[in-house]
Amino acid sequence: MSVGKTCPFCELVAGQAPASIVFEDENAVAVMDIQPLTPGHVLVLPREHAAGLSDLDERTGPHLFNIALRTQRALRGSGLRCDGVNLFLADGEAAGQEVFHVHLHVLPRFEGDGFGLVYERSSRPRREDLDAAAARIRSAWG
Amino acid sequence: MSVGKTCPFCELVAGQAPASIVFEDENAVAVMDIQPLTPGHVLVLPREHAAGLSDLDERTGPHLFNIALRTQRALRGSGLRCDGVNLFLADGEAAGQEVFHVHLHVLPRFEGDGFGLVYERSSRPRREDLDAAAARIRSAWG
Repeated sequence: MSVGKTCPFCELVAGQAPASIVFEDENAVAVMDIQPLTPGHVLVLPREHAAGLSDLDERTGPHLFNIALRTQRALRGSGLRCDGVNLFLADGEAAGQEVFHVHLHVLPRFEGDGFGLVYERSSRPRREDLDAAAARIRSAWG
Repeated sequence: MSVGKTCPFCELVAGQAPASIVFEDENAVAVMDIQPLTPGHVLVLPREHAAGLSDLDERTGPHLFNIALRTQRALRGSGLRCDGVNLFLADGEAAGQEVFHVHLHVLPRFEGDGFGLVYERSSRPRREDLDAAAARIRSAWG
């Protein structure tokens, strides 16, 4: 796949770039993020190139999640600081995705680590508006 | 389970609290968040109470992720604003978890939606420090 030549995560899973590997199997790799958002930050990647969630086959997504769960369990037992864990995934430029090879972030958390979410909390929607949104999503359910 | 009496998400999945349901099956429910971080914010919940990721059985975690993938696909086809998607999960108080019944956030994203991450990006770690962290996590791998 020609994209493999220029995709940094394809190079990484192929062993063509330096990587601190936490876990690997036939379909996925868990590796230390080289620009950690918190210390101990791990990325879980599919071996096969998939730019976004829509490009993942049906089994790979849940498999990545399973590895993320095993990663968080190991993080909690590793001696690294880890009082909590965030899982995070950005799909699409509008969502902050920077490398277009699916990656699931596993972030160890502790008080004072400097990580958090920012958002503008608007007024609480009316139930009828939530029902209407749910109906629209259900109508597009595959 | 007595916790069901006081857990708002147990009440929700049991149909004892108002909910705008997007999808449900025997093991999980996807529902509109009543305090959306972005418009169209969906939560994916296991039916069975699990306070945190360590309390989930092996099949339920990946199943929740699979429903989140189906939710993001439906969101993109729903007509609601959705140029990208974030998946987010907070496990433990240190990670910002507020309701102690596992929930996976599916957040539609678009430019100017006000949502984002904050973090202190420290200097890039040395490879030997990343390797040492990976070794510690591997040593605790279950």
